[in-house]
Amino acid sequence: MSEKLNRLKEILGEVSDLNHAGSVLSWDQQVNMPPGGGEARGQHLATLGKISHEKSTSDEVGKLLDDLKREFDGVDSDDAALVRVAARNYDKATRVPSEFVSEQAVVTTAAFDAWVAAKGRSDFSTFQPHLEKVIDLMRRYVTFFPPSDHPYDALLDDYEPGMKTAEVQEIFGKLRPQQVKLIKAIKSARPIKDDFLHKKYAEKKVWDFSEVIISKFGYDFGRGRQDKAAHPFETSFSVNDVRITNRYEPSNPLATLFSGMHEAGHAMYEQGINPAYERTPLANGVSSAVHESQSRMWENLVGRSLPFWEHFFPELKKTFPTQLDGVSAKSFYKAINKVEPSFIRVNADEATYNLHIMLRLELEIGMLEGSLAIKDLPEIWNTKMQDYLGITPPDDAHGVLQDIHWSAGLFGYFPTYALGNLISAQLWEKINRDIRDLDEQIHKGKFDALLTWLRAKIHVHGHKFDPQDLVQNVAGSKIDASAYVRYLNKKYGDIYGL
Amino acid sequence: MSEKLNRLKEILGEVSDLNHAGSVLSWDQQVNMPPGGGEARGQHLATLGKISHEKSTSDEVGKLLDDLKREFDGVDSDDAALVRVAARNYDKATRVPSEFVSEQAVVTTAAFDAWVAAKGRSDFSTFQPHLEKVIDLMRRYVTFFPPSDHPYDALLDDYEPGMKTAEVQEIFGKLRPQQVKLIKAIKSARPIKDDFLHKKYAEKKVWDFSEVIISKFGYDFGRGRQDKAAHPFETSFSVNDVRITNRYEPSNPLATLFSGMHEAGHAMYEQGINPAYERTPLANGVSSAVHESQSRMWENLVGRSLPFWEHFFPELKKTFPTQLDGVSAKSFYKAINKVEPSFIRVNADEATYNLHIMLRLELEIGMLEGSLAIKDLPEIWNTKMQDYLGITPPDDAHGVLQDIHWSAGLFGYFPTYALGNLISAQLWEKINRDIRDLDEQIHKGKFDALLTWLRAKIHVHGHKFDPQDLVQNVAGSKIDASAYVRYLNKKYGDIYGL
Repeated sequence: MSEKLNRLKEILGEVSDLNHAGSVLSWDQQVNMPPGGGEARGQHLATLGKISHEKSTSDEVGKLLDDLKREFDGVDSDDAALVRVAARNYDKATRVPSEFVSEQAVVTTAAFDAWVAAKGRSDFSTFQPHLEKVIDLMRRYVTFFPPSDHPYDALLDDYEPGMKTAEVQEIFGKLRPQQVKLIKAIKSARPIKDDFLHKKYAEKKVWDFSEVIISKFGYDFGRGRQDKAAHPFETSFSVNDVRITNRYEPSNPLATLFSGMHEAGHAMYEQGINPAYERTPLANGVSSAVHESQSRMWENLVGRSLPFWEHFFPELKKTFPTQLDGVSAKSFYKAINKVEPSFIRVNADEATYNLHIMLRLELEIGMLEGSLAIKDLPEIWNTKMQDYLGITPPDDAHGVLQDIHWSAGLFGYFPTYALGNLISAQLWEKINRDIRDLDEQIHKGKFDALLTWLRAKIHVHGHKFDPQDLVQNVAGSKIDASAYVRYLNKKYGDIYGL
Repeated sequence: MSEKLNRLKEILGEVSDLNHAGSVLSWDQQVNMPPGGGEARGQHLATLGKISHEKSTSDEVGKLLDDLKREFDGVDSDDAALVRVAARNYDKATRVPSEFVSEQAVVTTAAFDAWVAAKGRSDFSTFQPHLEKVIDLMRRYVTFFPPSDHPYDALLDDYEPGMKTAEVQEIFGKLRPQQVKLIKAIKSARPIKDDFLHKKYAEKKVWDFSEVIISKFGYDFGRGRQDKAAHPFETSFSVNDVRITNRYEPSNPLATLFSGMHEAGHAMYEQGINPAYERTPLANGVSSAVHESQSRMWENLVGRSLPFWEHFFPELKKTFPTQLDGVSAKSFYKAINKVEPSFIRVNADEATYNLHIMLRLELEIGMLEGSLAIKDLPEIWNTKMQDYLGITPPDDAHGVLQDIHWSAGLFGYFPTYALGNLISAQLWEKINRDIRDLDEQIHKGKFDALLTWLRAKIHVHGHKFDPQDLVQNVAGSKIDASAYVRYLNKKYGDIYGL
C-alpha cells in the first residue's frame, strides 16, 4: 500500500509542480509581462496544462486510485483524505473528453474577446451569439456527470464540492427578503456623508498604508509579496510563496486598503495550510466559498469595523491630514460602510452585495434550463435590478456585461461569493465566543489570536474536508444565512440608527 | 517526411515551452521571489527539467531524427538546420546518463553553498574538497563523448559548438604577448584621472539614463523589460519576451550604464532572431562567444567609444551637473577607458580582461589533465596574476574564489568571454567597411543602421549556423585575434598617447 501511495504522491507532486509553474507564468503575465510576450505565454501555458492533464488522468493514476480507495475505505487520516480528493479530481477530469476541453478553450477565447469588445461599446448584441455557444457548452458539460437533482449541481460542484443548487436556493430564499428589508430601512434613514473618501490620496502613501495593515494582520511578506496589476488577485506557488496583487484607482483611492485586506485574507489562508500537504491536492483551500469567507472576514468583519478604525484612523489621519481634516474615526467608519444600491457588483457594499449574486444565480439557472432566452438577458437583468435594488442600469456595460465570468465559462462560481459572506459571519459568531475580547484586541491593532484561531480551525486543514462538513464542525451548523442577517442588522442598525 | 518533421517540431515545441517556463521561474527566482519560496521553486524547476529531458531524449525523437537526418543530408534549408541542431542536442543529451546528471546536481549544489561560504571567509581550503569532486565529475563527463584531441574539447563544445581547445590555445597564444605589451606601454604612460566616476550618482537617475541609452540602441521594451537583480543577466522566454536585469553599486555607480548596454546587446540578439524559429532549437544565439560578441560590441565598441560620448555626455552632464563639473566629453571618455590591472575579472578594462580569461583557461586545462593539484590552485593563481598583470591578490576572495563558474560545474565557459571580444572586433571592422559613416551616426545617437546590419548578418539566423562558419561568412575569417589587437592598439594608443 505504502508503495502505491508513494507512487501516487510522486505523480501528483509532479502535477502540482506543473500547475504551480503555470501559476507563476500567469502571475507574471498579469504583473510583469511585456505586451509582446502574450502569444508565446499562451503556448507555454497550453503545454504545461496539457502535460499536467495527461499525467493526472493517466491509466496508472486511475489504477493506483482504485486500489488505494479500497485500502483507505473508512480510514480517517491525511492520506485517506488525499486519496479521496485525488479520486474526485481524477473522476471529474476523466469524465470530460479532451476534445470538449479543446473546444471549450476555443469558444471561451473567442467569447472573451467578444465580451471585451461588447463591453467597450456597451452592446450586448455582439456578445449574444458567443454567450449562446458558451451556454451550449455548459449544457453539454453537465451531461458528462451522473444525473443530479438539478443540472446546475455539476457546475456548482466545481467550485463548492458537494453543494447542491437546492441548498443554495433555500439559503438565498431566506436571505433575500431580509436584505431587501434592510436596504429599504436604510433608504429612509439619514444619508451618510462620504465626500472626503473621494479626495486625492497619493498612491504611494495608500499603498504603504495597505502594507502596514496586512503585515499587522499576519500576512507574511517573507513568503509573499504585493504587486500592482489590473485586478486584485491572490495566487499561490507553494505554502511558502503566496502572492497578492492590488490596484489603485484615483476615483476611489482608499479602495486599495480594502482590496489589500481582501487578498491578504485569501493569502493568509494559503500561507496557513499544513506544510506537510505541499505538492498534494490537499494544499489548497477547501472551496471557493470558504476561501471567500476568509477574504471577506479580513476585509469586512475586521477591516470595516469600528474597533479596527479606532486603532488605525489616527495613523491614517496623520498620513492624510488635509484630506481627513475634521473627520473622526466614527464618521470615517460610517463613510466606508455607506449603503447605496449601485450597478457594479465589485463596488457594492455589504448590505447590497449578495443581491447582485442572487440575480446572477437566477439568470445562470434560467440560461442553463433554457427557460430564459439569451437575447432577453439585458432586459431581464435590468428588471431584476429594479426589483432588488430599485435602480436600472443606464447601459449594458453597467448591467449584464459587467462581469468577465460568463465569457470565460465560469458558471456556478457566482454563488460562492455570497456563500463566503455568510460563512464569514457564522465563523465570526463562533470566534467571538472563543475569543471574548476580540473587539478589544482589534481596537489595539492585535490580530494574532484571531489568525491563530483561523489557522487552527480552517487554514491548516487545507482541502482535507468538504466545505459543508468543515463549516458544520467549526461553526456548529451548515452554511446558513442567519448569522449574516444578524451581523448586517446589528451593524447597519447602529450606523443608520434604525 | 513532412509528417515526421511536423511530429519532431511538435515535440521540440513542447520541450521549448517547458524550458522557457523554467526560464520564467528562474527569472522570477532572481528578481521577485520572496525568501520562503526557494525550496518549492527548486522542485518546480526539477520537475520541468525532468520532463523536458524525458521528452527530448525519448526513443521516438531518436527515431525521427535518424530518419530525418538521412532525408535532409546535404540539404541547405532552415528545416535541415533544425534537424542538424536537434540531432546534435539529442546526441549530447542521450550520451550523459541520467544518474550522472542527478549526481552532478547534488555535487554542484553542495559546491555552490561551499563556495559562497568559502568566498565569504576568503578561505579556499573549505572549497577545495568540493572542487575536487566537481573536477572528478568533469573528467567523467568527457568520457561520455567520442575521443578527441583534448579532453577539454568536450567541455568547450557545450558552449562553443565545434570549437577545439587547440584552436583556442593558438588564438590566445597570439593574443597574450600583444596584450601584455600594450599593458606595459600603458603602465609607463601618464595616468588618467577618473576620480569623478566615483562620486555619488543617484540610483534612479542612473537607471533612467541607462534605459534611455538602450532604448536608443533599439532594445524593444514592448518585448522586454529591465529589472533589478543581484547580477546583471539576459533571459529569453520567446523572441518577443527577452528580459534583462541590472544592478546599481554605490561604489561604482555608472557601471550600471555599461552593464545595461551589455545585457541589452545580448537581448537585441535574441529579439532579432527569425520569429519563424520560435519553439525550435534554432531560436537561440549561435554560441556563447557569438552572444558575447554582441554584448561586448554594444558595451565597448559602441558604449565606450568617443563618438558615443560626444553624443551622450552633454545629457549626462545635465543630469549630473555637480558630479561632472569641469569634466569634458573627452576626459569622461578617457576615464571610462582607464587601464589598470585589477583583481576582479568582471571589473576589468578592455586591455586586461582577456588575460583574466587566459589564466582561467590554463587552470581549467591543468585541473582536467591532472597536471595541477587542486590544493595548489590559490598559489598558482596568484603567481599567474603576477606574471600576466603584475599584481598579487590580497586574499582568495579577490583571487581564486571570485567566480561562481567552477562551483556550478561550468568548465569550458570562460574562454567564450574572450572569444566574444575578438569576434566583436572582427565584426566591427567589417561593419565599418559596410557602413562608412558609422562613427558619425553614433556621434548623432543613431544606431539603426548598425542594428539593421547585425540583425541581417547575425541575429536573424538564430542557431542556424555553427559559430566558426558564421564568423567566417560574415567577417571573412574564422575567429582570430588580429582585429582585436588592432582595435586595442588604436584605441589605447590615442587615449594614452603611445
